[in-house]
Amino acid sequence: MTHAEEMLRTYPAGLGDVDRAALVRCIGECLDCSQTCTACADACLSEAGVLGLVKCVRTCLDCADICDATGRVLSRHTGYDANLTRAALHACVTACRSCADECERHAQMHEHCLVCAQACRRCEQACQELISSLG
Amino acid sequence: MTHAEEMLRTYPAGLGDVDRAALVRCIGECLDCSQTCTACADACLSEAGVLGLVKCVRTCLDCADICDATGRVLSRHTGYDANLTRAALHACVTACRSCADECERHAQMHEHCLVCAQACRRCEQACQELISSLG
Amino acid sequence: MTHAEEMLRTYPAGLGDVDRAALVRCIGECLDCSQTCTACADACLSEAGVLGLVKCVRTCLDCADICDATGRVLSRHTGYDANLTRAALHACVTACRSCADECERHAQMHEHCLVCAQACRRCEQACQELISSLG
Amino acid sequence: MTHAEEMLRTYPAGLGDVDRAALVRCIGECLDCSQTCTACADACLSEAGVLGLVKCVRTCLDCADICDATGRVLSRHTGYDANLTRAALHACVTACRSCADECERHAQMHEHCLVCAQACRRCEQACQELISSLG
Repeated sequence: MTHAEEMLRTYPAGLGDVDRAALVRCIGECLDCSQTCTACADACLSEAGVLGLVKCVRTCLDCADICDATGRVLSRHTGYDANLTRAALHACVTACRSCADECERHAQMHEHCLVCAQACRRCEQACQELISSLG
Repeated sequence: MTHAEEMLRTYPAGLGDVDRAALVRCIGECLDCSQTCTACADACLSEAGVLGLVKCVRTCLDCADICDATGRVLSRHTGYDANLTRAALHACVTACRSCADECERHAQMHEHCLVCAQACRRCEQACQELISSLG
Repeated sequence: MTHAEEMLRTYPAGLGDVDRAALVRCIGECLDCSQTCTACADACLSEAGVLGLVKCVRTCLDCADICDATGRVLSRHTGYDANLTRAALHACVTACRSCADECERHAQMHEHCLVCAQACRRCEQACQELISSLG
Repeated sequence: MTHAEEMLRTYPAGLGDVDRAALVRCIGECLDCSQTCTACADACLSEAGVLGLVKCVRTCLDCADICDATGRVLSRHTGYDANLTRAALHACVTACRSCADECERHAQMHEHCLVCAQACRRCEQACQELISSLG
């Protein structure tokens, strides 16, 4: 059991109607995608062809920041506000999609972009599934 | 001139069609709102009646995280992606509105909530104006 | 293989003398501890006895922020600066120790504090081991 | 009066022996330096000579993250922990110094690096003064 799951298991109040499996998965994907994007931006900076990767660096940095904020919002349940959660998830879907699209352009040349695109797609999907489960 | 303005003035490429005054104002309000919300969450924790303020603490923490991420996204211009900027701004408007609504409920009892609600309303408005200027 | 490991494997330049296993472990513990602390602060807010937990909430929030920043610094390798890495790791050790000490005070009453204290101790140790390996 | 000052003025508990003017200044410099570093990293990405600026981008990103976390820690007063505050401030001094040193190398060529180096030096000094005032 991950710490994220244990924290939900030991939560001292009700979590409402939320799909716990979808929530745990989404928190994990947000953290993972944020770290992968931070690392991919840095890997791009180490490429001789960085001049062709500046849009990729920027999109990775934006995606890292939005995934990070979304993972934090999803980790809080007190005084739950569905509007705020949904808005954060929508921003996260958009950021992950932009970043996956951009990294896929470089995935054949740069394996770190392939790994990053996969992390972004997984996070995008996890956010979509959580949005659907929120009704 | 603030550092945010100086960084736009010295930016080595075009900024596109963005309304610079609206952009500078919005960056400033995001940073300011994030710090004010962090401080308001903490001030609530110091109140004897914290039990009645837990939703306020939570909403302030969420708003701080989303304003922070939005301020970072707005500070980047390379490989500009209007979809991503707009999505971050929409999440920020929602977070600021939720937090202002919640803080206003406690504003007569707790002056820090009044100050925080004002910072959230200013940030909400600055985000709205920047969204409008993006077309 | 985690994404953090894959990003190190596909890094396009040398990583210097760093102990990769210690680095991967430390990045993972920073992210995990940050999320667990964010969740523990929120779980404390849901306790009827929140008035006795305000120091715990605050310390969890500080620890979450410092672990988050440290995990980001550790995810970057270009233009590596050992002083900066070491300074971030020292701050993280201090934050994790403070948070573990505080959560342990409440661990018998609140299982989320027990889980959080364990995450903080693991992160503290991973940071110590990485500091040692940096020489 | 800035919102940071107003939040200290309306804080519902004692702030201990802290030098308020030094605290307010330091919070402001941390936020400002974080934003300036985020913008300078991005400005470097827009330079034709980005290949010679990759260490600068990386150091700016690290400094932005550490200043951000430090500004958050300084915005909390409940259950004050001088060890944790001091550790965050020491990391911030190191990050600001590294970033100022790096940006100064490029300051004659790139005005955004000059502005960023100045923001880093101001933040470094504000952190040093706050450390001194903590005794």
